[in-house]
Parts: sequence; C-alpha cells; structure tokens
Amino acid sequence: MPVGTAGSVKGVTPAQLRETGATMILGNTYHLQLRPTADVVAALGGLHRFMNWDGPILTDSGGYQVFSLAGINKITDDGVEFQSHIDGAHLTLNARIATEVQNKLGADVIMAFDECPPLPCDRETLERAVNRSVKWAGECKDAHNRPEQALFGIVQGGLDVELREHCARELIDIGFDGYAIGGLSVGETHEQMASVLGPIAKVLPVDKPRYLMGVGMPRDILAAVRAGVDMFDCVLPTRNGRNSNAFTAAGPLKMRNEQYRLDDRPFEEDCDCEACRGFSRAYIRHLFNVGEMLGPTLTSIHNLRFYQRFMARIRELIIADDLDSIVTEFPIAQMVPDENKENLCT
Amino acid sequence: MPVGTAGSVKGVTPAQLRETGATMILGNTYHLQLRPTADVVAALGGLHRFMNWDGPILTDSGGYQVFSLAGINKITDDGVEFQSHIDGAHLTLNARIATEVQNKLGADVIMAFDECPPLPCDRETLERAVNRSVKWAGECKDAHNRPEQALFGIVQGGLDVELREHCARELIDIGFDGYAIGGLSVGETHEQMASVLGPIAKVLPVDKPRYLMGVGMPRDILAAVRAGVDMFDCVLPTRNGRNSNAFTAAGPLKMRNEQYRLDDRPFEEDCDCEACRGFSRAYIRHLFNVGEMLGPTLTSIHNLRFYQRFMARIRELIIADDLDSIVTEFPIAQMVPDENKENLCT
Repeated sequence: MPVGTAGSVKGVTPAQLRETGATMILGNTYHLQLRPTADVVAALGGLHRFMNWDGPILTDSGGYQVFSLAGINKITDDGVEFQSHIDGAHLTLNARIATEVQNKLGADVIMAFDECPPLPCDRETLERAVNRSVKWAGECKDAHNRPEQALFGIVQGGLDVELREHCARELIDIGFDGYAIGGLSVGETHEQMASVLGPIAKVLPVDKPRYLMGVGMPRDILAAVRAGVDMFDCVLPTRNGRNSNAFTAAGPLKMRNEQYRLDDRPFEEDCDCEACRGFSRAYIRHLFNVGEMLGPTLTSIHNLRFYQRFMARIRELIIADDLDSIVTEFPIAQMVPDENKENLCT
Repeated sequence: MPVGTAGSVKGVTPAQLRETGATMILGNTYHLQLRPTADVVAALGGLHRFMNWDGPILTDSGGYQVFSLAGINKITDDGVEFQSHIDGAHLTLNARIATEVQNKLGADVIMAFDECPPLPCDRETLERAVNRSVKWAGECKDAHNRPEQALFGIVQGGLDVELREHCARELIDIGFDGYAIGGLSVGETHEQMASVLGPIAKVLPVDKPRYLMGVGMPRDILAAVRAGVDMFDCVLPTRNGRNSNAFTAAGPLKMRNEQYRLDDRPFEEDCDCEACRGFSRAYIRHLFNVGEMLGPTLTSIHNLRFYQRFMARIRELIIADDLDSIVTEFPIAQMVPDENKENLCT
C-alpha cells in the first residue's frame, strides 16, 4: 500500500492514486500527531475526510518514526520520551497515547505500539524489545475504544527466529485482527530477511492478514510473498519517483540520464498508467532537468501503477500455481539493487 | 491562457488542466530553446506531442525573457546578443532565429520578435524599440515558413498613445493573423495601463484577436476587456498557487494563515474544481505547512479554474450587455492588490 506520511501520498492526488489501482493507504501517526495533530484531524471529520480518501486507511503507531527520526531521551517499560524532529518539543509516546491518537485519526486499521531496535542488535536488547512490544500490545488492546477499527499486533525479535516465534505466540494469545512483522528492512541483508520470514509467517494464523511493514524492493516483496506474507507498505514508489528513478519490469530507469534525451518511448510500453499513456522518457527527463514538479508527479504515478501491476500479477500466478514465472515476466524481481538500499520508511 | 514556461504548466497534468476548462496554453520559446532546445522538441514530434497537449498552443518569441532574465550584451537593429541565465552561454536572438525556433516548436500561434523596454522609459528609447519591433515583425513574416501556424504582431510604444497607434498601423500594413499588445505589466500602474489600452485596441482590426500579453490580475483583465482586448496569458494562477495564494471571487486567501487551521470549507463554496470538490482549507493549509507538493498542485488547479470561471462569466455578461455586474459577482475584480504586483511573466 502507498505511504502517505503526513496526510497525503506525496505529489499525487487521490484521483490519480485511485487510477493506479491502489485501494489502501498508510498514514504516519508520528507525522500527523506533530502536524496538524490528531485533534485537528478529528475535528475535521477524521483522516478519510481530511485526505479525501474513501478507501481503507492504515495508521502506524508512531513508534518507528520515534525510534528512527526523533531524538530519544528515555525508553522504559512504560514508553518513550523523545524530542520532535520539527521543533525539539519534549513529548511522550506509549501504548495508551499511540492508541488514543490512532482512535482519533480514525483509520480502518491501527497498529499496536512496539519497540523497533536497529539491526544488528544484541540478544538482550532484542529480548527486551520483544517483551516490551508484547506488554505494550496488550495495553493497546485495552486502550482501544473504537471496535470498528481493526487492531494489528507487531512481531519483533530481529533475526532471532526463536524470539520471533515467541513474540508471535504471545501476540496470538492476546488476540489481534491481523499480525504485522516489524523490525525488518532496518539494515539487514535480503538473505537475512528472507531467512526469518518463512518461520515467522508459519506461526501466524492463516485466516488473518500477515503484514510485512516497510518492505520494499520487488525482490524483497517476492521473497516475503513466498514466505506467506499478504500485505506490504512502502514509500519506494513515490520516494524513488521524486528522485527520478522509475521502476520497470526490466529494471530501474534513472530518468535524468542523457540516454533518454531523444527517447520517445514511455517508461514501459505495456504500462497503462497516466504517465505512460501520454509522455515520453525524453519529456520526463526534460521535466527533471528543468526542475518541474510534474516530473516527480508523473514518475510517482508510474511507479505506483508498476507496484499495483506487479502485485496483481503475483496474485494471478499464485492462483495459477505458477509463481516462479514472475521473475521471467518481471526480471526486476530477482535483481540486486545497485545502490545501498536506503531505509525504506520515513 | 495558462502559461507553461518550459514545456509544462507547473505542477498540473494536462488532464487536470483540461478539467479546469483551459483550452489554450503558452510555451516560452526562450526557456524551451535553452532546454531541451527546439531541435529536440521537433525530433520528438513538436510541442503538442512533447507536452501531451491536444489543444491550441501559443509560443512567445523569446524576446521578453531575453530582455528580463538574460544578461544583455548588445542590442542592435539586427537583434540581441545575450548570455543564458542557466549557464552563461553566449547566444543571439533575432527575428529570423525567433521565427525558425517557433516553426520548429510547432505551436498553433507564434509571436513576432519585438523589443520590450522596461517602464518608465524615455521617448527616444521607446521610439527606437517601436521602429525595431516593426522592422523585426516584417522580418518574422518573411522568415515564417509554416503557414498553418498563425503569426501575431506585437504593438510596442510604452505609455505613449501616439507611438502605440503608429506601431499598430505599421503592423497592420504588414498584415498579421492577430495583434498583441506588449510592453505592459512591466512596472506601470493599473491606471496608466488602463489609460492606453482603449486607444490601442481601437486601432486594431476587430476581426482579428487582440491579445494583451502577460496580464494579469482580475482588475487589470477587466479593464482590458472593457478596452476591447480578447485574449490574455498569465502565470498568476499557478505562480500564486505555488506560493499558497488562492484566488476567490471575494478576494485572495493566504493559505498558510493560522485562521484556516480548522476551516472545513473549500476555497470557494460554489467552485466545481477538483480541489474544492474534495478538500478543506484546513487540509490545504496543512499541506503547505508540512511542505507537501500537493498543496501547490491543488491551489494551482483551483486558481486555474477560478480564472476560467471569471472569464466565462465575463463573456456571458458581455453578451447580456451587463458587464458592470461582474464586480458584484467578483468583488476581486475591483480590488487593489495588497502587495507590490510582481512582474507577471517568467
């Protein structure tokens, strides 16, 4: 699902987003609570009306951004004290607050508050993060007061399969509407991530959504689908789009490159997105070259449509029992990214 | 008509632009010739295909930007030597080059190359600019080699009515498909501009378009319509939109203001644009507040639609012989802008 950090999928209108085939979007609780605040969103009728998105919305708990963006002052079993990355304000986030804020925002799916340690990470820190995440998940369930919002728990435990399985079982005992796998795509290799996904997904109930947070590259998504994951979110389609990187089945295109100066083909010949229907690579390159906003917008639209087509084809091939064909149709799904994979969430 | 400086109306897709009611757009020859160059645009099938705009396009001659943006090295009766504002390259623009470049770009309407002196301006400089503009206009007509492109002459002469009339008569003798009034909105007051428009427009043929270049604010447009002008271009809808200033019939809104924090109304209650159909002022304010691209895009879309509605209503009231009612329906049309009016062309 496309990520809308502070209440919009960057550079793309809801109408354009809907046309890419996207149905569900993600809002970041941390960003929304700093600006404009959950109280303002609630006063304006909740996140759906505020953003003008009539499809499902998921909000994260805010924990990931607190641990990755904010200045952490203190983490205890009760929560986190931190400073806003915007104005340095001293703030607290814990299970109760994360749930109250998400209740106010009013998304369809809300996430339990968890501790997400960076990888690599020693066993003691991991174990403490798992215990806190389980404790906080229970507190979130108790604090949750809008039953029409689904509440998902988040499995932590880094690359330690035993800890992951323990965490998953504890969360299943508490009982959630869906289960997320957190704490991946935070510095580990593709192989490390792939190796733990299968065992984790196996423990999770097959009749509830299994959601891998913040992933990712087509190769990572394919590995996760093979492990049994159902649901993803990622900023890559829009972030890479804004940075002039276009996804295609054959591999990425860097649209600022001189090689596209006279290239009158679209990003992808068989793509039906608004950008591919109307514009040449040469035009897109020109837009980036002169700093026109339309370059980021059109490339984001294409990338969003690319991911929708990729996932739709994966679903078809699963039903046809022919998932291996995906790497023939989408060679990018087995390509190693040629740059250091940046942290995929903001 | 909305202005697309370097091959796009900034931040707005052709589909969004069409939905505002816009039919004709303007491309700046100076910007397009610097990047990507007219040869590249021609190789890619011309400006319509390059930008994916199937409505009429007008290109200016490039002269205005040379005189306002570039470093001028030398102006003679043969043309202008200048330096690119992008990379300092030494370049020449004259009647023949301006016409050849516009023939390559392939717009529906192209403009004669003229000299546009800043105001105030002494009589001798004005007179020289008029004589050169007339000479160059003739050279443009001779150089023009694509008869399917309409060629417009441009009346210069500053605030000197006698010079303006002389210039207009000379251009009419040469014979053009339409006549533009240039060299206004370059530092003079509203009253000064309004005072010369009537006499100029009276000299111009009623059966050809009369086009006031680079104007402007609703008040200026109304004065020009009253003088007999048929056609306008301006960057204000999109430039002001990017700067968080929204046009409404009742006057401008500065969307960053605190007063809109909880305002759940659209820009204008009776506006049918994509922004007003879906989003509150509070949401637009939030987008600008957090630096989301969607703020400039949605405000530009609204402003473009505002101008289309304003002009459509002017046309209706002219036919109903009731143009004076426009200031009741659109009080902004008699408001004095509360800021120094910036130079309206880029």
